[in-house]
Amino acid sequence: MKPNEIRGFFASWEDLEPERYLRLDYYIECVGDPEEAAAHFCSEQSTAQWRRVGYDEDLRSRFAAKVLELKVENTHSDFSYPVRFRRRTPVSACRVKIAHPYANFGARIPNLISAVCGEGTYFSPGIPIVKLLDIDFPDAFLAEMEGPAFGIEGLRDLLQVYDRPIFFGVIKPNIGLDPLSLSDLGYEGLVGGLDVAKDDEMLADVDWCPLDARSGLLGKARRRAEEVTASRKIYLANITDEVDRLCALHDLAVKNGANAVLVNAMPVGLSAVRMLRRHARVPLIAHFPFIASFSRLPNFGVHSRVLTKLQRIAGFDAVITPGFGDRMMTADEDVLANVDACVTEMTGMRPCLPVPGGSDWAGTLEVVYRKLGSVDFGFVPGRGVFGHPMGPRAGAASVVQAWDACRKGISIDDHAAVNPELQAAITAFRSSGAPPQT
Amino acid sequence: MKPNEIRGFFASWEDLEPERYLRLDYYIECVGDPEEAAAHFCSEQSTAQWRRVGYDEDLRSRFAAKVLELKVENTHSDFSYPVRFRRRTPVSACRVKIAHPYANFGARIPNLISAVCGEGTYFSPGIPIVKLLDIDFPDAFLAEMEGPAFGIEGLRDLLQVYDRPIFFGVIKPNIGLDPLSLSDLGYEGLVGGLDVAKDDEMLADVDWCPLDARSGLLGKARRRAEEVTASRKIYLANITDEVDRLCALHDLAVKNGANAVLVNAMPVGLSAVRMLRRHARVPLIAHFPFIASFSRLPNFGVHSRVLTKLQRIAGFDAVITPGFGDRMMTADEDVLANVDACVTEMTGMRPCLPVPGGSDWAGTLEVVYRKLGSVDFGFVPGRGVFGHPMGPRAGAASVVQAWDACRKGISIDDHAAVNPELQAAITAFRSSGAPPQT
Repeated sequence: MKPNEIRGFFASWEDLEPERYLRLDYYIECVGDPEEAAAHFCSEQSTAQWRRVGYDEDLRSRFAAKVLELKVENTHSDFSYPVRFRRRTPVSACRVKIAHPYANFGARIPNLISAVCGEGTYFSPGIPIVKLLDIDFPDAFLAEMEGPAFGIEGLRDLLQVYDRPIFFGVIKPNIGLDPLSLSDLGYEGLVGGLDVAKDDEMLADVDWCPLDARSGLLGKARRRAEEVTASRKIYLANITDEVDRLCALHDLAVKNGANAVLVNAMPVGLSAVRMLRRHARVPLIAHFPFIASFSRLPNFGVHSRVLTKLQRIAGFDAVITPGFGDRMMTADEDVLANVDACVTEMTGMRPCLPVPGGSDWAGTLEVVYRKLGSVDFGFVPGRGVFGHPMGPRAGAASVVQAWDACRKGISIDDHAAVNPELQAAITAFRSSGAPPQT
Repeated sequence: MKPNEIRGFFASWEDLEPERYLRLDYYIECVGDPEEAAAHFCSEQSTAQWRRVGYDEDLRSRFAAKVLELKVENTHSDFSYPVRFRRRTPVSACRVKIAHPYANFGARIPNLISAVCGEGTYFSPGIPIVKLLDIDFPDAFLAEMEGPAFGIEGLRDLLQVYDRPIFFGVIKPNIGLDPLSLSDLGYEGLVGGLDVAKDDEMLADVDWCPLDARSGLLGKARRRAEEVTASRKIYLANITDEVDRLCALHDLAVKNGANAVLVNAMPVGLSAVRMLRRHARVPLIAHFPFIASFSRLPNFGVHSRVLTKLQRIAGFDAVITPGFGDRMMTADEDVLANVDACVTEMTGMRPCLPVPGGSDWAGTLEVVYRKLGSVDFGFVPGRGVFGHPMGPRAGAASVVQAWDACRKGISIDDHAAVNPELQAAITAFRSSGAPPQT
């Protein structure tokens, strides 16, 4: 690109109509002139050839993505990660903020993904290393998206629980049990104090455990637990399946007594979730399979915060994400970024419940609460409840007891002296932790 | 895990019923005992807690994923990529082959993804670095998938072209032109010798270029070009959009004269593609946005070959992938792995057309042909045709001329002496190449 061509891909935010642009924040590592690389980066994600041969025209003013800010943070002798690239050192590590005119594709999730983390992003000249760190949407874009139908408030209203975290429990063993065995376990967990008995994210509508039978029994178990405990409960049915079955499975599960449904967001596709959102009558809960494959490495891929935002605008009422602790291999700041993406102000979008999970048991509850500084979260043990040595009713009780301790400002060890379920959890899980499986 | 527990996750292929298992090939980097890590890896992707508290049962024989082969390739003092992990050196770099009983979830793409590259894969104890390298399906699984309706043979029958590569051209400028301008360009390209005039993967059903008007005009342009050239042509309409619009947009485009449709596979979701496949009456062509975000790094994520296989079984008749050359930052062996995934024997699955693309122009055609050793591929220049200095008709002609040279065994420079379009392409693109945008 020539210098005057490069300038066509730069702008200042003040000179643009803010309602027309997504704002994108990327980390890039490039060779050559960073300004030229950033201009190519904008060109490739928008109007790559901006005039026809033989025409005096320039499509860039309306259609080009534009660099708002370019900071060279460091120069290195090589890329962060070895890649197949003809090296021309030095490598410049940059942050680049871009305004992308979303009318190029409209308020459509697949086309958004194709533009902001598609071919243009990952095959731009001189930039083999890219991570999309964040995305912000103008109000006009958000106005076209449905977002959560229930959100945190709706979930709390459903459960009539307002002053503490929501206690989920993933029924375990996750794979291999028949519907009756699962519903027995789920009932125990709910009676013990869980708010939500949850299908595992890998449990499908399979012949050895069909959704119809499972949701029928667990729907009944949920209602019985509501009667016994005189409180509201949720059976969260996993309806992750082929896209053309989602709405029918939702209807089946809800008819049978499921009052929330789980969908594995990326495997099903965010656009399919948006379709389901328009149909659904109960809260939609997201699980996170596949997301680590493009978000774990700090300098390449797409930050999980971007996916959390997309899950929220697609319509999820709660988003399960990797939580704190060594076991989940996720930096605290990334866990917190996902939580923030759930609750940050987005015009017209209800906050959705953040559910940072993994390896949880009674003993990890206070840590999560302290790190979040809020009761607006879901806590999602699996084996921490269903692998409890005294059984799932006691496992659920141990979580409730841990919250009592936290609320009273006493240590769980002191509280365990008068709560055998909590004591048994400490004995079983403190040294080794409860393996994850949210 | 205890030694006897670890053994429950190992098996030899001879002792298993092959029709019940997917075979998975992973690269992993682990700390601690590799056998224990591999056992956890299987456990996490299948039945993580294999017995209820208080029951004498073992769900593993039927439901556990099992290690078939574990090879420690190297030991290192650290992981390939820095990750948030409490380090316990040394790191063992391993290849692990796994048999995964697919009845755990059935022949469902979202549930398959959730199992083989989901939470279990990326959050297994001691294994922060994972790449799913390959997947093989038993015939029983494939029998439940539709696969390509047309495949290579169907596409060739549609075009009546059997003895050479299929020439695609991506109409450029890709973003910003009205339907009439696009159809004029497409017509020129088709008359010049393209088989397929293709919408860019970023071109959506937008108000400045609605699919109805665009496909109407390009459908007509395709038919006029067929008359003028007395040959069959394809207008490939991009219908990438929200999932609940896919089938309607297919119907609209086809009614208007599109005779193939383009879908961005990952942004739309493979399961939505499968839904479309059951509905579609024309070939489905896949484009590759987003895939680089989890496939580029050699030791982390998911190999693009796996995605190519999944795109084929979901029903795509042609799969556009990153092609050869520095510009696409993809190792030749990875390009070839994707090509192989399109055409390799899979029981009951038609081969789909591999279309390795990026930065192509007349001068890159022979290289692609030689590297593939077959005429069964699509060649997909964008600016190499539509940025040609003499216009798109000449740009398309230059590709045809390059193929003539290749077929006759003469150099394009010799052939250019009597073919001014080819000469102009060489002058314009040889030094700098034609930037990609397939």
